[in-house]
Amino acid sequence: MERDTEIESLFEAGRPRGLARAISRAESGDGAALIRRFAERTGRAVTIGLTGPPGVGKSTLCGALVTRARGESKTVGVVSVDPSSPFSHGAILGDRIRLSDHFVDEGVFIRSMASRGHLGGLAGATGDAVALMDAFGLDVVIVETVGVGQSEVEIAELADTTLVAMQPGSGDSVQLLKAGILEVADIFVVNKADHPMALQMQRDIRSMMEMMGTATGGWTPELVPTQAREGVGIPELWAAIARHGAWLRASGRLAAKRRGATLHRARGIALGRLRERVDAALAARPGSSDAADPYALASDVLLELGAGVAAEPAATS
Amino acid sequence: MERDTEIESLFEAGRPRGLARAISRAESGDGAALIRRFAERTGRAVTIGLTGPPGVGKSTLCGALVTRARGESKTVGVVSVDPSSPFSHGAILGDRIRLSDHFVDEGVFIRSMASRGHLGGLAGATGDAVALMDAFGLDVVIVETVGVGQSEVEIAELADTTLVAMQPGSGDSVQLLKAGILEVADIFVVNKADHPMALQMQRDIRSMMEMMGTATGGWTPELVPTQAREGVGIPELWAAIARHGAWLRASGRLAAKRRGATLHRARGIALGRLRERVDAALAARPGSSDAADPYALASDVLLELGAGVAAEPAATS
Repeated sequence: MERDTEIESLFEAGRPRGLARAISRAESGDGAALIRRFAERTGRAVTIGLTGPPGVGKSTLCGALVTRARGESKTVGVVSVDPSSPFSHGAILGDRIRLSDHFVDEGVFIRSMASRGHLGGLAGATGDAVALMDAFGLDVVIVETVGVGQSEVEIAELADTTLVAMQPGSGDSVQLLKAGILEVADIFVVNKADHPMALQMQRDIRSMMEMMGTATGGWTPELVPTQAREGVGIPELWAAIARHGAWLRASGRLAAKRRGATLHRARGIALGRLRERVDAALAARPGSSDAADPYALASDVLLELGAGVAAEPAATS
Repeated sequence: MERDTEIESLFEAGRPRGLARAISRAESGDGAALIRRFAERTGRAVTIGLTGPPGVGKSTLCGALVTRARGESKTVGVVSVDPSSPFSHGAILGDRIRLSDHFVDEGVFIRSMASRGHLGGLAGATGDAVALMDAFGLDVVIVETVGVGQSEVEIAELADTTLVAMQPGSGDSVQLLKAGILEVADIFVVNKADHPMALQMQRDIRSMMEMMGTATGGWTPELVPTQAREGVGIPELWAAIARHGAWLRASGRLAAKRRGATLHRARGIALGRLRERVDAALAARPGSSDAADPYALASDVLLELGAGVAAEPAATS
């Protein structure tokens, strides 16, 4: 295996290859030492999470945001999270291709990663990549996640500003509400805003926002219609991101949010290590020894781990 | 709080109220003692997982399967898993209503549960409910999950037979492939089979199955077109479920699958306990004491837990 020092000098020299290798290290689960070395340099990048159901044009939106940032001479990192199969462990690409306009631009670093297999789960792999891009000195880091579910909510824990993209006429809104995605949106993006149902969707989102209410002193999510392919609405979206960033700083929330992100990552890392231990303990048990009682089995495993925790909470009755 | 003995006698007497209360106990995270008491009675029920993306008619399919099972005088339990928001902790019902035909039937026990908040996560809450229904003596237990993602894969770990429902013309197939759902299907159900795109979807599924290949000596997933609302295809689906069950028994896979389910539940329970400990340790830390290094923080927490695990794997370079 490549030595840390090699990666480190490439990274220090601002060579994208150093960043790429550091992320690979993190992804394979042994980047801890590297990440710790660079931890103090983090905190400078603006981080943007972009999520929403499949097919809403997230990659196109992402590409448009990259173009916008480059127009202001900002360097950009993109972490594109593929929900890889838990069985095949293979990442399926696909619409990643739309980001390819930027592949030859030296101010843009694009990394597609699988969301599974890393010690700390999605939060671990993605959090590491964002931290490394930040430490590398990229000005803006965009995390794009495909799919609907828990992963989107996790992105909100990691990013300064979370964009939830939707498209009109898809009946997404109720599903998003179910999945808890609406609650994590700092900015709603209604893409394909030339669709006949676009105004209806905007009304739907507004009424759901009213239903949920707004936290006092909190940020009221903005709603930005876009046609990402044509660049329509992108300046407005960029301005909304900047407004949210300014609010985070002015309200003192930025520091709290970033501390929250560190805690979230630490939680993922710790649980990842514990998960390895639990799996090893379970795998080591002879097949015939267990009855149909998972609580007894869990107790045995926890005892074996010496974690000082029982499988059952203290009796309350 | 109600005493275990009260619930136990209701349960023993075959009173649905006893089952309902036992599941509530499990759901609130302190059902371990009850479940352990009934663990030895489990293993008799046929368990069926039913999953697929939103809007494919899972509730209607579920209702049709219940009707079919009742036609054979089998008692049925349904666990309907709602992906509740991780923020509001509220379960959103909705199309649950289609199961209401069966609400007055004493041979049917329906339980809607939130998927979060339980110690052992989805596997924990759902696994407990299935085990309790099984121990209660219900002949068939159907677990229905809403949404697309990790939870579906978990269902496959718990159920004897997993049905993946899809609808034509939705472009679901690629998304399902991404989410790893195809790999867990014992039976594909193409619902709304009167749709003009139904044959195309069946062809798509067949070619994806060919791409994935079939494990030697394994089960080749069946594909059943249905129109659940009209009852079309339900006898065929029921027969396919029976064939899969017969194959599980004849091949000796049933025992392995159920041991796997117990291990999966034990893992969820153990990790749930550990998660509580990690969260408590993180919450107890003073806000100002941590730098931006989540690995250092994770190490501290693991040390504090005394779990004898480090946050970093042994150095390999």
